[in-house]
Amino acid sequence: MNRTSILFFLVTMFSALTLMAADPPAVSEATEACLMCHETLHPGIVGSWRESRHSRITPASATAVTGLARKVSSSTVPAEQAGVVVGCAECHMLRPDEHADSFEHNDYRIHIVVSPDDCAVCHSVETEQYAGNIMAHAYANLKGNALYQDLERNLLGMPEYENGKLSFKDPDPEIEAQGCLYCHGTKLEVTGTQTRETDFGEMQFPVIAGWPNQGVGRVNLDGSLGSCSACHTRHDFSIATARKPYTCKECHVGPDVPVYKVYSASKHGNIFHSQEKDWDFNAVPWTVGEDFTAPTCAACHVSLLVDPEGEVIAERTHSMNNRIATRIFGLVYSHAHPKIPDTTVIRNKDGLPLPTALDGTPASEFLIGPEEQARRRAEMKTICRSCHGSSWVDGHFARYDQTHDATNAATLEATRILAEIWENGYATGPAAGGSPFDEAIERRWADIWLFYANSIRFTSAMAGGGDYAVFADGFYSHSKGLAEMHQWLKEREPGDQSD
Amino acid sequence: MNRTSILFFLVTMFSALTLMAADPPAVSEATEACLMCHETLHPGIVGSWRESRHSRITPASATAVTGLARKVSSSTVPAEQAGVVVGCAECHMLRPDEHADSFEHNDYRIHIVVSPDDCAVCHSVETEQYAGNIMAHAYANLKGNALYQDLERNLLGMPEYENGKLSFKDPDPEIEAQGCLYCHGTKLEVTGTQTRETDFGEMQFPVIAGWPNQGVGRVNLDGSLGSCSACHTRHDFSIATARKPYTCKECHVGPDVPVYKVYSASKHGNIFHSQEKDWDFNAVPWTVGEDFTAPTCAACHVSLLVDPEGEVIAERTHSMNNRIATRIFGLVYSHAHPKIPDTTVIRNKDGLPLPTALDGTPASEFLIGPEEQARRRAEMKTICRSCHGSSWVDGHFARYDQTHDATNAATLEATRILAEIWENGYATGPAAGGSPFDEAIERRWADIWLFYANSIRFTSAMAGGGDYAVFADGFYSHSKGLAEMHQWLKEREPGDQSD
Amino acid sequence: MNRTSILFFLVTMFSALTLMAADPPAVSEATEACLMCHETLHPGIVGSWRESRHSRITPASATAVTGLARKVSSSTVPAEQAGVVVGCAECHMLRPDEHADSFEHNDYRIHIVVSPDDCAVCHSVETEQYAGNIMAHAYANLKGNALYQDLERNLLGMPEYENGKLSFKDPDPEIEAQGCLYCHGTKLEVTGTQTRETDFGEMQFPVIAGWPNQGVGRVNLDGSLGSCSACHTRHDFSIATARKPYTCKECHVGPDVPVYKVYSASKHGNIFHSQEKDWDFNAVPWTVGEDFTAPTCAACHVSLLVDPEGEVIAERTHSMNNRIATRIFGLVYSHAHPKIPDTTVIRNKDGLPLPTALDGTPASEFLIGPEEQARRRAEMKTICRSCHGSSWVDGHFARYDQTHDATNAATLEATRILAEIWENGYATGPAAGGSPFDEAIERRWADIWLFYANSIRFTSAMAGGGDYAVFADGFYSHSKGLAEMHQWLKEREPGDQSD
Repeated sequence: MNRTSILFFLVTMFSALTLMAADPPAVSEATEACLMCHETLHPGIVGSWRESRHSRITPASATAVTGLARKVSSSTVPAEQAGVVVGCAECHMLRPDEHADSFEHNDYRIHIVVSPDDCAVCHSVETEQYAGNIMAHAYANLKGNALYQDLERNLLGMPEYENGKLSFKDPDPEIEAQGCLYCHGTKLEVTGTQTRETDFGEMQFPVIAGWPNQGVGRVNLDGSLGSCSACHTRHDFSIATARKPYTCKECHVGPDVPVYKVYSASKHGNIFHSQEKDWDFNAVPWTVGEDFTAPTCAACHVSLLVDPEGEVIAERTHSMNNRIATRIFGLVYSHAHPKIPDTTVIRNKDGLPLPTALDGTPASEFLIGPEEQARRRAEMKTICRSCHGSSWVDGHFARYDQTHDATNAATLEATRILAEIWENGYATGPAAGGSPFDEAIERRWADIWLFYANSIRFTSAMAGGGDYAVFADGFYSHSKGLAEMHQWLKEREPGDQSD
Repeated sequence: MNRTSILFFLVTMFSALTLMAADPPAVSEATEACLMCHETLHPGIVGSWRESRHSRITPASATAVTGLARKVSSSTVPAEQAGVVVGCAECHMLRPDEHADSFEHNDYRIHIVVSPDDCAVCHSVETEQYAGNIMAHAYANLKGNALYQDLERNLLGMPEYENGKLSFKDPDPEIEAQGCLYCHGTKLEVTGTQTRETDFGEMQFPVIAGWPNQGVGRVNLDGSLGSCSACHTRHDFSIATARKPYTCKECHVGPDVPVYKVYSASKHGNIFHSQEKDWDFNAVPWTVGEDFTAPTCAACHVSLLVDPEGEVIAERTHSMNNRIATRIFGLVYSHAHPKIPDTTVIRNKDGLPLPTALDGTPASEFLIGPEEQARRRAEMKTICRSCHGSSWVDGHFARYDQTHDATNAATLEATRILAEIWENGYATGPAAGGSPFDEAIERRWADIWLFYANSIRFTSAMAGGGDYAVFADGFYSHSKGLAEMHQWLKEREPGDQSD
Repeated sequence: MNRTSILFFLVTMFSALTLMAADPPAVSEATEACLMCHETLHPGIVGSWRESRHSRITPASATAVTGLARKVSSSTVPAEQAGVVVGCAECHMLRPDEHADSFEHNDYRIHIVVSPDDCAVCHSVETEQYAGNIMAHAYANLKGNALYQDLERNLLGMPEYENGKLSFKDPDPEIEAQGCLYCHGTKLEVTGTQTRETDFGEMQFPVIAGWPNQGVGRVNLDGSLGSCSACHTRHDFSIATARKPYTCKECHVGPDVPVYKVYSASKHGNIFHSQEKDWDFNAVPWTVGEDFTAPTCAACHVSLLVDPEGEVIAERTHSMNNRIATRIFGLVYSHAHPKIPDTTVIRNKDGLPLPTALDGTPASEFLIGPEEQARRRAEMKTICRSCHGSSWVDGHFARYDQTHDATNAATLEATRILAEIWENGYATGPAAGGSPFDEAIERRWADIWLFYANSIRFTSAMAGGGDYAVFADGFYSHSKGLAEMHQWLKEREPGDQSD
């Protein structure tokens, strides 16, 4: 325990004793009524809430904070919310007329699904930023893209083998909810009302199709998009949890986006896992070198970072993609980030709803240009320089750019082999009216750009996790996939038995 | 540090100081004799033991505890054990005549392998429950099933390539011990006596085949089944360790049972990993919302859970499967849980020792019925409701049931393709006297139900870990496996070169 | 909080208060000058350094420590370093004439890349040991081996599909740096000088090819090999971090060396993950049973271990391979460890730079003999016995030896199938002038020994992680790979359509 720790201990002790003397902030009458039953019915979530800031601070005192430590971004909070802590009623009774699932419950009008637009009462800036994030549009971007729907059907659809043909029917909605939409978000819909026998007699509740779901692009019953609790896990809505990579892991573990795996095996992940228990994940702003000494996902993409003198290194943003110059995730090549979060409008030069053509040409008019890319890159580099000298940072990004070039060039070779397969009629491609995702060889092609090229690029982005660039779904698998595609083609060519 | 923490700190301080004044509980003379040498010989395990409750509490004081906090389930403990702490001698000298490995050692009669029946002296209820657990029978359920033995031989057996044929000989016992039996448990057997030169002169020790092993279904030298230390890791036998998912991970990491991976990427796992250092894993009973706010494996399957008012949410059970209505693990389809833990008695309608037939028909007379399934489901739902409303819970299980239907239907299509392959003689199936597990195409079929369908179902069960339902051994691999099987068949059909 | 903890708390409190009174050790003028700007420019690394021992202890006081607690191994430290804490200048200005990247920077002569030979000023023994470690030679061992270079080209090289042929060009240096050399280390080279606009005006910096890199075999600008910061992560250079398996994971996660994955799912890993937050990872020496109760990678391979009475169990070594009797990593068979760290000198009986021949014959004259193997085995067993009785330890190693025999025998069968494929001209092997790594079937063969056999052997070595021996890249995949190779061969044989 060093001097700082001792001081911290004494100050905390003193503050705590002071707090013991002060009156705790008020809980609303409505929330008290909720707790009366639900504290026993759902002790887990009430326990989480009791540990949250929401249960201990009123918006009035939160809005009184000035400067970078301020957590509430709305300039004012309505009087009825401001004076009480943020309890059950403060969220589940907000804006009742906007929510299709509002229902009468013991003389209160409650809605089950709290939405970003509810959170916006106090956190308006973050809500607005998030709405501009590609993640908020994850539902429509998947469901409104004919090509992705074809892929989804060929993955999740019910297989049917009849008369020597294998086909996939449209997926069941529950299977979709469990599969792609677990992360992308479901579209919620009130489909009726249900009567349930409870400890307090018969009660009526709305029936909600697509529920439960906490996907990042959930279409809510008030029309808003997303779910804040995807990352700010209910009901403690903890900044600390959202800042830890375990949260991002839920949807970014791989092999299509092996971000958590790569991070965890990188030097950054090494430091994080070794030292996380000694770091302060709650501090706002988040001070590099004091609160933590290696970045988590949030540090580079979301959080408000300052140096020990309080100078801002990176502004807080909930538009997570706005420090990302190049989209690593290949569709089917990596590319400049889309201009707007609704990607259903994108058409490549061949008219397909993809940000690149099969020959690699980007759909540039829908993607950010070099200037915006440079701005984003510069912002990211500022964060890197918190711990690395310029020659380190520049060296890193030169390598990263080269990795994009190399993996995209390799994807082009794989696609040229597939094109020849299609041309020769060994498989049925789009030009002949077939799906590019329903035959075994087409799926092998997909492995190459969807798993291996992505894995290599994410590894490069995070400067490490050596195995993920080579043996663990990296170059080893990448080149093997190419060799197998090549062999498959040669086997089918007349007069050529071997490869 | 909040008020509770300060109070806790002061109370702990006071209790600790009080304890310092009190006499420590007695260590038996025999244990003192053991420690004399073994404390230096094996400091690691003695260190673990010194940190354990066993080293600090006598059964007499443990049995004096009443109510839910009681950890000793036997109503009485024999006088010779009751008054001393549970040290080396108290376990390794228990019931000497029952253990085939009992031997004279410095005038004491010691046995090396402590068994569940030894633990039963204090923990009789848990021992009895565990004996009814399917895990206790893991050895015989594997070794006494001709079909599983065929699979085991085709995995672990020594390959032999002679005269153009590839075959697998019976696996070496050490390879088995290292492979399947690491988790299932070995059958221990005293095969002789060995003389060893030690620091204290020449000594004799029993030689035990199958040792070391801590598998859940180990056949012990007193005839009892299992190893408590599989989860209650020696020699601190900590409840806290057993309650953490790292323990279950040892045998449930995948890809056949990717439970830990799925949990770790689920919202439950996200909360656990982010907050575990602040939770109390030692409290008995375990209070939802106070001691922890998201379940680990133990919370749903084993531990005694109460709400903050002390009302029981779930009884403790060491028959881990008795809240499991449907067995997720496909053999080859998922199915109602077996009625009794000895699964070697099961025969499907085709006479095979499998809980389902290859066409999906369950071997219902050996499996629990809808009523028992409903009871188990209801018990599990009670736990879910600690943190989730009824519409959440019901929505979750509706989706889960649909996932079983969908994956089983898909396994049926895969099996129909394989059946056609067998019928056409492209591979040799059981009807023609062949193994269903020894040819490449059969192994591709096994991937589909053993890895991918299981992965999808476990992901559904734990409501999350999106990637594990789709890209990480989920629907992506599942449909690709089907497409490859289909292509393989088409390639072999006369007059059909392409798929 | 037990008595020891209370005592510890009081002592720490007292010591801390004493320290507050004492003068902090001196920081050199040069380091103060560095900090003036760099504390704000790079708060992350300065923050790490402030938490390090280096920032709080002078070499003079560190060399005054006697006995096993001594951390500085050099008998004396030059006067100019001895009296000040180890700050920026003390490392980055050491031995300026030896470093090709030394440059004038605000009137100081600085070099960017600190090397093992710089660290040797205080840590000479560890530096010397490390130089004898095979890891220190990882760059040349890869780049100076024609066969490995062929493999590397077929993995990382740019694929080119022209005129029906698929080939791989030499990999781009940045791709190599990102791939194999991320772990093996790059060869650093000053290629010029760059002028950069900084907050303090125009400045000149060296341009270093191969930078950044922290690989274990990095070729430094002073000619020394390796990077201490690969494990002793900059800039806290923490013993605690180096002792945690997260550090080793960076390069040993698999599937070629799935060490971290296996460890993490082993009983040792189970205990570590469950209890790590209560262990003391900083203590020197490291006391088994007091500071920790289950080994990490460092415990068995690197750290100075003692028992609670202070008796040495294992000496500290930074020649990490010198308790390793058998090299698990198959090339292509597992084998006795190489005699010297430079493996480019090895030739098998067929003249190939491999430690075994394709028929399994070891290149014995380059490998340690049975006597040295026995010595290493004995040393390792001493560590095992800290927690395990002799019958446990002997049983473990008997099983481990059998696993080597079994997996090597299986690799031989796979190689015999490949040899037949080559002989029949179905693929082009080395005898016909082809690469053994460029065709799909050859890559399937590589999976068997490089991924599956290694996975099984590492699982055996760490006595656990059941799934990694069977379903997760273990025997399941191993036997499936063989079945696929066999099928591939049969398909090509005249008059044989089925397998």
